[in-house]
Amino acid sequence: MPPEVLLEMARPIIHHRTPEFSAILDQARERMQPLLGTKREVILLASSGSGAMEASVTNLLAPGDEAIFVNGGKFGERWGRILKAHGMVPHEIIVEWGRAVRPEQIIDALRARPNARAVFVQASETSTCAVHPIAEIGAAMRGRDVMLIVDGITSVGVFEQRMDEWGVDALVTGSQKALMLPPGLAMIALSDRALARASELKTPRFYFDLQRELRLQRDEHTTAWTAAVSLILGLNKALEMIHAEGLPRVYARHRLMAEAARAAGPALGLGLIAPDNPAPGVSGLLTPPGVDGAKVVRHMRDVLGVSVQGGQDQMKGKLVRIGHMGHVGPFDMLVAIGALELALEAGGYRFQVGAGVQAVQERLHRETWS
Amino acid sequence: MPPEVLLEMARPIIHHRTPEFSAILDQARERMQPLLGTKREVILLASSGSGAMEASVTNLLAPGDEAIFVNGGKFGERWGRILKAHGMVPHEIIVEWGRAVRPEQIIDALRARPNARAVFVQASETSTCAVHPIAEIGAAMRGRDVMLIVDGITSVGVFEQRMDEWGVDALVTGSQKALMLPPGLAMIALSDRALARASELKTPRFYFDLQRELRLQRDEHTTAWTAAVSLILGLNKALEMIHAEGLPRVYARHRLMAEAARAAGPALGLGLIAPDNPAPGVSGLLTPPGVDGAKVVRHMRDVLGVSVQGGQDQMKGKLVRIGHMGHVGPFDMLVAIGALELALEAGGYRFQVGAGVQAVQERLHRETWS
Repeated sequence: MPPEVLLEMARPIIHHRTPEFSAILDQARERMQPLLGTKREVILLASSGSGAMEASVTNLLAPGDEAIFVNGGKFGERWGRILKAHGMVPHEIIVEWGRAVRPEQIIDALRARPNARAVFVQASETSTCAVHPIAEIGAAMRGRDVMLIVDGITSVGVFEQRMDEWGVDALVTGSQKALMLPPGLAMIALSDRALARASELKTPRFYFDLQRELRLQRDEHTTAWTAAVSLILGLNKALEMIHAEGLPRVYARHRLMAEAARAAGPALGLGLIAPDNPAPGVSGLLTPPGVDGAKVVRHMRDVLGVSVQGGQDQMKGKLVRIGHMGHVGPFDMLVAIGALELALEAGGYRFQVGAGVQAVQERLHRETWS
Repeated sequence: MPPEVLLEMARPIIHHRTPEFSAILDQARERMQPLLGTKREVILLASSGSGAMEASVTNLLAPGDEAIFVNGGKFGERWGRILKAHGMVPHEIIVEWGRAVRPEQIIDALRARPNARAVFVQASETSTCAVHPIAEIGAAMRGRDVMLIVDGITSVGVFEQRMDEWGVDALVTGSQKALMLPPGLAMIALSDRALARASELKTPRFYFDLQRELRLQRDEHTTAWTAAVSLILGLNKALEMIHAEGLPRVYARHRLMAEAARAAGPALGLGLIAPDNPAPGVSGLLTPPGVDGAKVVRHMRDVLGVSVQGGQDQMKGKLVRIGHMGHVGPFDMLVAIGALELALEAGGYRFQVGAGVQAVQERLHRETWS
């Protein structure tokens, strides 16, 4: 997190029912719109991103409604669990970890399930470091009376989102990734179609009642429930910094970091989990056979002080995920790959030490990013 | 908020899936127990207190279940709205604003509604500055197979709560009052009976699934969804400060502030909204006829820089509520009443200027609190 944001949140707290807070709430919500690529109202929720994912289900579907969801990783799987928890009928499209769903798969599923009312998908599936092609999915679905609901938790602020242009009906994100904040604040925007649907529905909901939140945030400049004030102050400051840098440069910075991190893969003889559709926010390198990926991650974190994530479920012990969203810069990739090299060496892997950081550096020197 | 807590939250963020965070989560949960008067596990949720109120409904009741709720103000009314939103059958006990519900009213309601499975009530109803007698309600309900569910948002950390001894089945609170934190974190503890009930129920819930949270927080030292990390760091620090002061002194400080604030009422010729059962965390003085209470509140806030709240709904324009929870001390009551006097004078009320602060001072000098 940037010190500017930490200091903003360390200011004396203001009450959430004051004109001073209202002005900040309005500004933060407006500053969010370009990141989502929308002119719709952005609704803030005091919850983690999972709460906003649930809100998109309970506000836009009724129990018994059929829905398609793309399960290409841990977060895709979560859509299915939320749908089931609320009595909807989820139909799964299973996608191999690291692969992207193809728009034809969505259309086939919609043909097979003509009653499906919505498609749920990740823009970026954090567990597999892969992206799904939201623009193409939206184009393929155009003209159908089926909502497209997108988890943008690791895409919003990382690479360009064009919610309105792509025909996305709900776009969800959270505070703790590219927005450079602590967790605890979520955002969601809804299309007109989604709002109309929400107004018809009586699916049980209270804390995550998006219509109520929208009305209060838009018309009364306040929140339905006590707002996460410090996080909203921090959000407004983080968005000020993001817009000062300029979104095109923010996106180019993320792309460069991802390309630099991935360049280390072939240089070190490591495979990539998502070679064809890599995410700009997080890069996944496969650990070599005979080397315990979990130990590599622990060594990087505990011995070298470089925080990365391992693989989950089927990728446990086989993957190192390097997150590069938000307040990080291209040179941080030298550190991440440098630490990875040392941890691989400690794990018994034999390779040309320095080949990884050299590949990173080669990628960096071809671009001026600052 | 105390600077120590603000600075704690301004520390570089730690990841929520690390041993370092697990240790802080465990410590904060354990440090919460004496404030709730419980040996039960305390569950933390990334939401405002309203989210935890909803969790107590969706985890402990099924749609169609009957429940009694005490509506003695804005927050009591909220229980009814949550119950209705989730398809339960709420039966209301209406209590005049400022009054306490009598345990006999609860028992009468339970006799009239023998199928009721739970009673929902506030320990302290913030909108009316009144307390309800939870110990007595618990004693009157003892032996019945009916759960007692208590909103402790403005009681936990303000005055003594004895959840286990009183027979409370769920006690809910939030971060932004006596816990001296920004909003965005809620806490709830459940009795064995409530936990057993939760395990039988399939009421739709996902983000607020208390069984899942309990299992992960107790057994895995982590949270189900991304934790509100900075708020939990702040909570742990705030609880360290509270225990260093000592709970008996914390409670005595709140009682003294409340008595001092109320002493200004008769001295200024102002009535008290809750004369017989005043809350130790917030005091309500009725503004005199002919003086617009909303203007008094605005004058105090905008001209004098002293933040107080006005009345809501039927008390709009008739009430000044002085909150004195958390990081405030007895001398702050001199400031609050001093500002109230100036605002009343500006509003055209005629009285002996200084009589209010004198009454505060008389109450303070009889006690050594520090």
